[in-house]
Amino acid sequence: MDGRDEIEGLIALMARLPGLGPRSARRAVLHLLRKRVQVMAPLAAAMGAVAEHARDCPVCGNISTGEICAICADPDRATGEICVVEDIADLWAMERGHAFKGRYHVLGGVLSALDAVGPEELGIPRLIDRIRAEDIREVILALNATVEGQTTAHYIAEALEPTGVRITTLAQGVPIGGELDYLDDGTISAALRARRSL
Amino acid sequence: MDGRDEIEGLIALMARLPGLGPRSARRAVLHLLRKRVQVMAPLAAAMGAVAEHARDCPVCGNISTGEICAICADPDRATGEICVVEDIADLWAMERGHAFKGRYHVLGGVLSALDAVGPEELGIPRLIDRIRAEDIREVILALNATVEGQTTAHYIAEALEPTGVRITTLAQGVPIGGELDYLDDGTISAALRARRSL
Repeated sequence: MDGRDEIEGLIALMARLPGLGPRSARRAVLHLLRKRVQVMAPLAAAMGAVAEHARDCPVCGNISTGEICAICADPDRATGEICVVEDIADLWAMERGHAFKGRYHVLGGVLSALDAVGPEELGIPRLIDRIRAEDIREVILALNATVEGQTTAHYIAEALEPTGVRITTLAQGVPIGGELDYLDDGTISAALRARRSL
Repeated sequence: MDGRDEIEGLIALMARLPGLGPRSARRAVLHLLRKRVQVMAPLAAAMGAVAEHARDCPVCGNISTGEICAICADPDRATGEICVVEDIADLWAMERGHAFKGRYHVLGGVLSALDAVGPEELGIPRLIDRIRAEDIREVILALNATVEGQTTAHYIAEALEPTGVRITTLAQGVPIGGELDYLDDGTISAALRARRSL
């Protein structure tokens, strides 16, 4: 493999990242080549380390480079609350909000007969075990407001009923900064049904 | 450093790439985390290898992972023509055109009194040595059509005069597929001055 091909190969791999096409991948690699010592070597090392160490947390399903993830390892987060999210992107989004102080359960998908995703694949039995073992008082279902998300939420709510845990879900309504004129009808009627006294 | 920080560090490094902001860097890293074996590990390895092996070609200034770059190493490209480009992005652009079969000289910048970039920094003496050593017949100045690019082109043309080599520059005119209505006045008048019989 000659030298040009090695760089071309790197561009082809970079172009497979979401948000980068062949053109922007080339620009990114050129930037890296120009800053080989300051940027490229540290980035390659960081990526290699994460690729080697990253694993699914056996407790919650989060991806982390530790044995169990930082959230499950933090005793301050044993608040008796578990937030159920569809995938890690949603967990990260919740963490950015800084509002939830408990732990998570990452489903890794939604129930889907077509894709043969059942309760076992989503770790529902593991979640039930945790509710008993960790003395959980409340499970917050933070699933996407799609048909599949809501179907999965209802299934989980039913499956958890025998545990007697309190089951809640995120409020639906007008987003902060949202303008009524731009909202869909479903959101407006949901916000109206869930209206509260000022 | 706990597991979350290692991933956060990778996101921060990715966000420094051109074309990726914090949000798209997070999305890219999430994609990599999901495809750790198929995508992330090969990408990290390829990037590490390029970061380690990449060097400036001592002959032309191209970046390559070989001792000298693939173009300088290819005997078929000893056509007696050298194309002078401002930087490696321009070399890559020329190569994509598949029209030039000779070798290159990468300046790595343009003359700039402010930034203390003189003929020595641009490798002009090295270019003159090559013209004699490699029996070069023609030097094509493919510099950007900016004031700095054209100033540098004129300087190089003067510096090369004693060697007696033929000095040419890229034609200026209407780009292929270009619409006159959208072209600037300078391009239109340049194209008119350089008009040719059909």
